[in-house]
Amino acid sequence: MKLYTFPPAPSPQRVHIFIQEKGIEIDTEFVDMMKAEQLAAEYKAINPRATVPALVLDDGTVIAEVVAICRYLEVTYPDTPLLGSSAREQALVCEWDHRLEMECMSAIAEALRNKGEAFKHRALPGALDLEQIPELVPRGKKRIAAFFEVLDTQLSANQYIAGDHFSFADITAFVAVNFSAWVKMKVPEELVHLNRWHAEIAKRPGVAIQ
Amino acid sequence: MKLYTFPPAPSPQRVHIFIQEKGIEIDTEFVDMMKAEQLAAEYKAINPRATVPALVLDDGTVIAEVVAICRYLEVTYPDTPLLGSSAREQALVCEWDHRLEMECMSAIAEALRNKGEAFKHRALPGALDLEQIPELVPRGKKRIAAFFEVLDTQLSANQYIAGDHFSFADITAFVAVNFSAWVKMKVPEELVHLNRWHAEIAKRPGVAIQ
Repeated sequence: MKLYTFPPAPSPQRVHIFIQEKGIEIDTEFVDMMKAEQLAAEYKAINPRATVPALVLDDGTVIAEVVAICRYLEVTYPDTPLLGSSAREQALVCEWDHRLEMECMSAIAEALRNKGEAFKHRALPGALDLEQIPELVPRGKKRIAAFFEVLDTQLSANQYIAGDHFSFADITAFVAVNFSAWVKMKVPEELVHLNRWHAEIAKRPGVAIQ
Repeated sequence: MKLYTFPPAPSPQRVHIFIQEKGIEIDTEFVDMMKAEQLAAEYKAINPRATVPALVLDDGTVIAEVVAICRYLEVTYPDTPLLGSSAREQALVCEWDHRLEMECMSAIAEALRNKGEAFKHRALPGALDLEQIPELVPRGKKRIAAFFEVLDTQLSANQYIAGDHFSFADITAFVAVNFSAWVKMKVPEELVHLNRWHAEIAKRPGVAIQ
């Protein structure tokens, strides 16, 4: 298999940290999104959706959603489980990762992509031309702030996002919190549990290398 | 464990079909969303997020995202796998289910909730008050139409959404196609593969009972 990636961007970064925390090595090729290489014909021949990351299996199957790439890696390399062990743990990791995507990552994307030239006609990720809607910028920021409070409450009673163990949910949350700086948001000082957790996660060897 | 649900609504319906296709029985209590019972204090004491469905485990843990509830049931009842068997199958089911949520279910919700009195101040699911943005109605419909074409292309080369086997991805896609009628969308006749698949899925005993 081969991974096409660009770790500075948020979605590839989730896979990058997942691989480092697993302690595995994957044949990797960088696609420079700063030079829009993901939109070039050469890359579209590999992943027609023109999204990064993409995991290409030996039979040619392309997996291009972060959660699906991590599922593939988890099943293939079950040591150091990051998607949970028991049914309960697996469900909680899935629950929190999904909420983070729907309620936080998508809110950041909403605030980021609905103004400025860089995302003109590209208000959502993907191939479809969609016009920017300026009202989505403050709405996105309101949603981010609200979800930071949800995370703080969760972390007031749990060491990690999904409970007692570091998991993929922590990876997504960590990337989301950092990504929110792209729209000039940061975790307020009074959210002490979220700040405590963020400082701890940032020290992990698998996370620090970026 | 106990499932709180309301099968006529799209999200609970995905769990309902999943359980029927698994051939398992779960202790179930109905929450009448037509009477807004999910917003009553009695239900909020069970699931503070006031969303339906919710699976309450014997230790009191609440799982409230559809994909996480189905993950819990898949691990607990591994017979008749609906989330895939091999690493490749599991990744493809996850990939398509996730795309269906992000690119189709959320587009339908966007078209549905951004006009009319019923969703005033509730333009997104969840606890947050958000004003309607009328421009999201045509945007949602454009996204639905585009994703129907994606599904048609996928089904031109595959019997089921994620390949050779019926899976959770088919359940989500089937519910999404039906749910699109709520915003007066339907699959165009010329998308013959998507229509072929929909007619086949509708005949399944686990799906037909609604």
